[in-house]
Amino acid sequence: MEIILAKQAGFCFGVKRATQMAFEAADMGGQTFTLGPIIHSPQVVQKLEDMGVKVLNDLGELDTGTIIIRSHGVTSGELEEAVRKELEIVDATCPFVKKAQEHVQSLSCAGYDVVVVGDADHPEVQGIVSYAMGKVYVVGSGDEAAKLPRMSKIGVVAQTTQSFENLEDVVRQCLRRGSELRVFHTICDATAVRQDAAKDLAKQVDCVIVIGGFNSGNTKRLAEVCSEIQVRTHHIETADQLLPEWLEGVARVGVTAGASTPKWIIDEVIEMIEQIDKDKNG
Amino acid sequence: MEIILAKQAGFCFGVKRATQMAFEAADMGGQTFTLGPIIHSPQVVQKLEDMGVKVLNDLGELDTGTIIIRSHGVTSGELEEAVRKELEIVDATCPFVKKAQEHVQSLSCAGYDVVVVGDADHPEVQGIVSYAMGKVYVVGSGDEAAKLPRMSKIGVVAQTTQSFENLEDVVRQCLRRGSELRVFHTICDATAVRQDAAKDLAKQVDCVIVIGGFNSGNTKRLAEVCSEIQVRTHHIETADQLLPEWLEGVARVGVTAGASTPKWIIDEVIEMIEQIDKDKNG
Repeated sequence: MEIILAKQAGFCFGVKRATQMAFEAADMGGQTFTLGPIIHSPQVVQKLEDMGVKVLNDLGELDTGTIIIRSHGVTSGELEEAVRKELEIVDATCPFVKKAQEHVQSLSCAGYDVVVVGDADHPEVQGIVSYAMGKVYVVGSGDEAAKLPRMSKIGVVAQTTQSFENLEDVVRQCLRRGSELRVFHTICDATAVRQDAAKDLAKQVDCVIVIGGFNSGNTKRLAEVCSEIQVRTHHIETADQLLPEWLEGVARVGVTAGASTPKWIIDEVIEMIEQIDKDKNG
Repeated sequence: MEIILAKQAGFCFGVKRATQMAFEAADMGGQTFTLGPIIHSPQVVQKLEDMGVKVLNDLGELDTGTIIIRSHGVTSGELEEAVRKELEIVDATCPFVKKAQEHVQSLSCAGYDVVVVGDADHPEVQGIVSYAMGKVYVVGSGDEAAKLPRMSKIGVVAQTTQSFENLEDVVRQCLRRGSELRVFHTICDATAVRQDAAKDLAKQVDCVIVIGGFNSGNTKRLAEVCSEIQVRTHHIETADQLLPEWLEGVARVGVTAGASTPKWIIDEVIEMIEQIDKDKNG
């Protein structure tokens, strides 16, 4: 059986950077915490926990120690609290997310009403939105943007993992709603690049294995994109979730992984596929 | 025969203002000139000439007197020359065009490459473009915008008479070409309002008379829009161009006029139609 890895798969720039920063902080020892999971990979979070890094849901209980800010960023209020408490801060916010936060802040300061294109429930969006000092709206689509009120100056910023087409639809609607429109193209192409590579992969194989956190939005989307092309698509978090029957009658299997999936898990999955193949033929 | 006048027809706000300013300046006497035709109506230009207001093509020959700046505006270089020569300036530039010029200047100052959506040959666009201090591009459509180079910060401004859909198409393309996009919605709805009213009119009548300068872009467009609905559409500048045979067998005739057509010409045309009808029945 041939195993094909997607041309682009696994850690994106921001996740790789955040993970490295977290492991370096863990190595330093001391009381170390992350505010929410550092990335959407339960396995990475577990590995850090094994090194003594605890996940906090809020800073209420914490008065001393090191706080690692996750790749998706936190709200301006949480950051302020950490500064006020004089905690040691390791800011692992993805630099692209940081830019989006800064744009919202400067747009707000300059008197723009801000429209954030994204998923209102996502921690990245909640962080970005918190930097607005005036009016701010979160819209998930052009249809939602069509319901926005009439404004004067409108600033638009996107969650970094949004699709370009969605930003385009929202911009189109906003153009009708104000006399000035200022758009910051804050979309990172890591998501689109992984989706395109996954589509290419799905066309070449009889079965696709998508690896990544079940809580990872971009991994779930990768699985959706692949299953539209190849029905034999399976989303797993770890190698032990792989079922041998998925590979029955398969000549070529494709492997891809979300932006928060570490290389070691991809390697383990590939080894497991090789093992299943060996067992079958041996 | 019933005569129906379009709900919105004739002088828009900027043209009305410019014409009033020009006639007031003419009334003051003295050496008075306009730089290019004050508006795209040869009859208004002629009336002003009869009052002693001459049309100049450039300021080269002029050293003294009053210069009236036409509704479409002039280039920043021409304005500077008039100031340097200490001419008396009557600035009849449409306030909406002025806004577009100011936006181009401030965008340029702030480091944006500027994209002007419009007709490169139109004096309004030539005026607007002249206010750019850095790179500036004129595009007539989304297709043309698709050929623009990659930029960093892009500022978009539209000729005031452009269609909203055209601006939308250009914005869509520009969004792919830079990391920041700033759009000023400089379109005046006078054009769209007249076109919509003309369409409504064309559906109700057996013949449409469109009145306005043969050099007026918006009048030509009105005639196009009407002729798509009613083939018996005729574009005239003055009442004496009306041919009685156009009205043969017509029960209802529609009348509309471009944004630079004065009321007195519309009235003359209506009187002429009434006369033709009377002659026919009498």
